[in-house]
Amino acid sequence: MKERIKRIFEHVEGDIDGIIILNSTKPHVDLTFYYVTGLINGEFEGSGAIMYPDFSGEIFTSPLEEESALKSSMPVTVLKKRNERDDLFKERLKGMKRVGVNSTELTYHAYMKIREATDAEIVDISDAIIESRNLKDREELDRLRKACWIASRVAEDMIDFIEPGMKEYELAAEISYRMRKLGGHGDAFDVIASSGPNSAEPHYTAGGRVIEKGDFVVMDFGSLYKRYHSDITRTYVVGEATQKQKKIYETVLKAHDAAMAMIKPGTTGAEVHNRAADIINDTEFRGMFTHGLGHSLGLSVHDGSGLSPNVDVDLAPGMVYTVEPGIYIPGYGGVRIEDDIVVTEKGCEVLTDATRELVEL
Amino acid sequence: MKERIKRIFEHVEGDIDGIIILNSTKPHVDLTFYYVTGLINGEFEGSGAIMYPDFSGEIFTSPLEEESALKSSMPVTVLKKRNERDDLFKERLKGMKRVGVNSTELTYHAYMKIREATDAEIVDISDAIIESRNLKDREELDRLRKACWIASRVAEDMIDFIEPGMKEYELAAEISYRMRKLGGHGDAFDVIASSGPNSAEPHYTAGGRVIEKGDFVVMDFGSLYKRYHSDITRTYVVGEATQKQKKIYETVLKAHDAAMAMIKPGTTGAEVHNRAADIINDTEFRGMFTHGLGHSLGLSVHDGSGLSPNVDVDLAPGMVYTVEPGIYIPGYGGVRIEDDIVVTEKGCEVLTDATRELVEL
Repeated sequence: MKERIKRIFEHVEGDIDGIIILNSTKPHVDLTFYYVTGLINGEFEGSGAIMYPDFSGEIFTSPLEEESALKSSMPVTVLKKRNERDDLFKERLKGMKRVGVNSTELTYHAYMKIREATDAEIVDISDAIIESRNLKDREELDRLRKACWIASRVAEDMIDFIEPGMKEYELAAEISYRMRKLGGHGDAFDVIASSGPNSAEPHYTAGGRVIEKGDFVVMDFGSLYKRYHSDITRTYVVGEATQKQKKIYETVLKAHDAAMAMIKPGTTGAEVHNRAADIINDTEFRGMFTHGLGHSLGLSVHDGSGLSPNVDVDLAPGMVYTVEPGIYIPGYGGVRIEDDIVVTEKGCEVLTDATRELVEL
Repeated sequence: MKERIKRIFEHVEGDIDGIIILNSTKPHVDLTFYYVTGLINGEFEGSGAIMYPDFSGEIFTSPLEEESALKSSMPVTVLKKRNERDDLFKERLKGMKRVGVNSTELTYHAYMKIREATDAEIVDISDAIIESRNLKDREELDRLRKACWIASRVAEDMIDFIEPGMKEYELAAEISYRMRKLGGHGDAFDVIASSGPNSAEPHYTAGGRVIEKGDFVVMDFGSLYKRYHSDITRTYVVGEATQKQKKIYETVLKAHDAAMAMIKPGTTGAEVHNRAADIINDTEFRGMFTHGLGHSLGLSVHDGSGLSPNVDVDLAPGMVYTVEPGIYIPGYGGVRIEDDIVVTEKGCEVLTDATRELVEL
């Protein structure tokens, strides 16, 4: 993964002599470890990687992860005892003047371990890591495509599956199950299956409410595939939609389409968000789109950047974002339509291809 | 959750004037946030809690999580803009001389934010937090019991489900699905379903291998329930077990039973591990038990302590551990039997009650 290491070094401001990634106990593992090593399997608690200005890197890990680690092209040092890691750090960092760390995924405890091992200046290079990880390479896009394909198929499968009388958590279980049956490696995050008034809460997950005729059903979920995350939302109406339901749905869809049409290199995340928000705010649903339009997607679900009011980063080819406008009416219900896109040279390509038309079950 | 905050303060060495928990972006959220607030739902990225020496506490969060946060009995401050958090820290930490942080779940980036807000000495109180979280209270035990019940039922369900010809990942999908159908809130960790030679790798998850007659099938999984984790392993034989398979299984079971019989207040984690290891090492399978006997379980799967060679902590009532001896023969296969237990006044209570006898499918 020399290209990825190169990209990180090139994004760092000023010279650094090395970069250390040091994982703690789950869930406090730095996902950048998987980015630079290309590894998929393994927990790698207490493990990590050291990278050098010639763009080479090495892995240090425990005997338990040795077999997994050897699947990387990087050299691997297996540490049998805790103090061996301190010794390794001391030796490798010897003579270094500035050492980079990823402050947003390094625990303070792990930082102190690095601090003890060297007199070098410790430099926070998390911005360089976010910028590098935001630009997906071909292998990353292939994995994201597969993760998006799995989620899209399951979204469409639910058209025949959902019936009044079913509980929200039963729907969530089915979504999760079908993604795995299609080769997914797990849920990208807790499946949201909200119905009726619950659909007005963007962060609701899935409860015991029974799905009824006339409900909006919001399903927001994604699949893991080789450590990459998809994230799709579809909203269906149980039975025939009322005029009001149609109006809400069409407004969200209009905002969604307008946002998609705006995405291209050079546009900022804020501009895309504002376009969608303006469309909703020009209707009777003013003020009911209460969150950012989207977030970048990759090794984590919120991968460092966003399509939201205060993001002035220019979009660039290879960036992957969700586009997810919504309207939420407390006590009544809500609609959200979410797709995943990759920015291309001229615009964007949609990775989630499930139907976006109003579905009446 | 005043009792829990009290317990943390009492475990801290020396005086401190306050404790700050500050979450970063998922997965880098400090699980102690859920411990002290008692909350179950919500992501709480960028949110946190401040606790005081009178054992009171308060939550700060964003508008998106306000509704979830209000389910806690603690006062909630909703922060609309980023700099409002800095101002809140400055005000609340004013005059404090020593402020505690949880270094093992706080990112270095979040630490720097706290550092900027106060001139107080920042004290790492992660040991006090681990010690407090290790002793489960009644509500925590109720949740763990339910999580263990779900996993136990699914382990037994698999006796009728597994058939030769099935793929490992299909088995993993079924396990995950059935736990949710029983009311589980998700997988405690990636389901392990390893068969044949793959069962010799303790950290293998689930691949495309087809399960065959004569295989060992190792299933290692757990359910989340209200944020608490169970963790069970059962190993079945597909078809009639050979003499060698029986011998391996019985040796692991003997080690397992002997370890369970030793658990009581005052015994150390190392003593329990060594007892199980000695039994295996006294047989032809010497050296084939390659990991620690168990780990503490709670809001995270590896909850801070263990039953392993270098743990000299005395067991105490309310501590919850896995007990999971195994024998792994590279290229041939492996057996692991894992249960979750809570230490009681006189010994231990088993929380996972699925059959431990040799199952021949």
